[in-house]
Amino acid sequence: MLSTTPRRHVIALALLVVTRSWAIPGADELPFKPLPRQAPAPKDNPTTPARISLGRQLFFDARLSKDGTVSCNSCHSVMGSGTDNRSVSVGVGGKEGGRNSPTVWNSAFHSVQFWDGRAKDLEAQAKGPLVNPVEMAMDNHEMVVDRLKQIPEYVSRFDKAFGGKDSVTIDNAARAIAAYERTLVTPNSPFDRFLRGDSKALSAPARKGFTLVQDLGCVACHHGIAFNGPEEPGSGEGFYQKFPTFTDNAFVEKYQLMKDTGRHAHTGDENDKHYWRVPTWRNIALTAPYFHNGSVKTLDEAVRVMVKTQLNKSLTEDQVKDVVAFLTSLTGEIPKQPMPELPQTPGRTLLVH
Amino acid sequence: MLSTTPRRHVIALALLVVTRSWAIPGADELPFKPLPRQAPAPKDNPTTPARISLGRQLFFDARLSKDGTVSCNSCHSVMGSGTDNRSVSVGVGGKEGGRNSPTVWNSAFHSVQFWDGRAKDLEAQAKGPLVNPVEMAMDNHEMVVDRLKQIPEYVSRFDKAFGGKDSVTIDNAARAIAAYERTLVTPNSPFDRFLRGDSKALSAPARKGFTLVQDLGCVACHHGIAFNGPEEPGSGEGFYQKFPTFTDNAFVEKYQLMKDTGRHAHTGDENDKHYWRVPTWRNIALTAPYFHNGSVKTLDEAVRVMVKTQLNKSLTEDQVKDVVAFLTSLTGEIPKQPMPELPQTPGRTLLVH
Repeated sequence: MLSTTPRRHVIALALLVVTRSWAIPGADELPFKPLPRQAPAPKDNPTTPARISLGRQLFFDARLSKDGTVSCNSCHSVMGSGTDNRSVSVGVGGKEGGRNSPTVWNSAFHSVQFWDGRAKDLEAQAKGPLVNPVEMAMDNHEMVVDRLKQIPEYVSRFDKAFGGKDSVTIDNAARAIAAYERTLVTPNSPFDRFLRGDSKALSAPARKGFTLVQDLGCVACHHGIAFNGPEEPGSGEGFYQKFPTFTDNAFVEKYQLMKDTGRHAHTGDENDKHYWRVPTWRNIALTAPYFHNGSVKTLDEAVRVMVKTQLNKSLTEDQVKDVVAFLTSLTGEIPKQPMPELPQTPGRTLLVH
Repeated sequence: MLSTTPRRHVIALALLVVTRSWAIPGADELPFKPLPRQAPAPKDNPTTPARISLGRQLFFDARLSKDGTVSCNSCHSVMGSGTDNRSVSVGVGGKEGGRNSPTVWNSAFHSVQFWDGRAKDLEAQAKGPLVNPVEMAMDNHEMVVDRLKQIPEYVSRFDKAFGGKDSVTIDNAARAIAAYERTLVTPNSPFDRFLRGDSKALSAPARKGFTLVQDLGCVACHHGIAFNGPEEPGSGEGFYQKFPTFTDNAFVEKYQLMKDTGRHAHTGDENDKHYWRVPTWRNIALTAPYFHNGSVKTLDEAVRVMVKTQLNKSLTEDQVKDVVAFLTSLTGEIPKQPMPELPQTPGRTLLVH
């Protein structure tokens, strides 16, 4: 189940037998940590107010798509789950993408980005959808920059955020979006409060579920700040697993789990076939439907599928409910934010079609 | 040019010779008024905080469209111009609509809604796009209500906003959206400040432009609070004009101005052929492209087209610039508002496809 290539971590089996005596003094030894309120940032892209504010505008600006109909927020709605809650997303011209939209909430705590980890950080990720023909469909990054340069307020905001003239570049646009995304943190979930010492923060079923995910072995992969592995946020080092691992079950066919070869489709490496970045559990109750193809509509069914395909086990319906209760305790608080005002181009439109 | 049917007003010629000595004492006699900060509301739909807040959520909620990709805000973006700045809007499945999206800003000051005035108020308007197959494409209003009822927080918010149980109805959804829209007012434009006594609020070209629109006769139709006629906001009584009136010019063919028969397409009445609700001038500098089909990309060209097709006149390029400067002085202040948080459905998605 675990590859031995350097970029895939072998999890110490010790993880599977973490102590379950949840006295808070022991919490430091556990591979779980409360979600910090602030995400770390790379040295060359500090999370400054000017970059956050510009990034928020860009995140919501549909003019970053070819026909002006799709913004980052279209598929990663920060008014809700950080996703579009669809199986796969819809881009320019009604075109459907191939994979389920991952939540933007807490994405700063991933070690790599995209389902297949093909972007090492948020800056690299942000550039992809802009020029993906089934997403925002711009011809190329020059087209993005050309359009932004035609909006005077953006020119001055880029200069202010990045200190200097001629600051409207695709790299700076990606930096601003990434800086904004680093503020998209949902702290203070019931589980975080529990970790911080509030023993009543978890319901009885959630506590049972927490015991179960440890006993079953789910936490071998789903641990760390974002429950998606041991790698440091933004490290660029991915944590991947094979999915499905056990293929001799009805779920694999029913939900077409092997149609997409995952990381292999990006690297071409046979060893990467059906390997995927381990996805976060944070806010997972909000992000239905589930898996890379969004084929599973409900969280309880997603639990059944994972237990069978990854551990070759089955749960009772009560156990499924308990695990769902625990996963639901990972729903954090959506931060309040102002509605951005997007810069205008008085007297004309940039959307020629 | 002016019809004599009861619902079209004959403007007293006196309007065309309004005084131009802009001493503020005389301002009351003029057919122009500063935009109020608050829009009037019908008695059966007071603009309460609970309705505004619910309406804002509904306005941004793409689950009100069949496949979850289109919200009211998609085509009437309140982060920008209140439109999508496209010729025609794009609905579910990439389908293009037939007419240019009117701005939602200050729409509460229209006497009727839609380009052809077919909805008497904002409440009636809000119900249309939900079930228009090229817009939000819900099968019917029952489908809207069914979906809303599956979102527990909406059920309680409807009950709170409308006082009672079983408050989730299509009429109440429309009322909430309308209540929110009545807050979408952009006060304090340079022209409003000018009307209120700030003689320096208008630039020299804008003042010249203001003189011109009176001398030319534009204000015969474009007057009143929203520069779209004499009817009271929300009165349900439309103010229509024929467009184009003068058809023997190159613009009519170039911009396909007669392809759509306007109000006639709704009523079937030959007398309504090419009649349109007089559109607002407020924020017109932000709402390019122009006219019912969005065929004209810039405001200066829109001015040339109107002067030729409605008045059979031509302007010098300096005059066009002055009129544009005046129209730009009608750009108001976009109000600050919070980002709404949309209610979730933990563990599942409502978007089955």
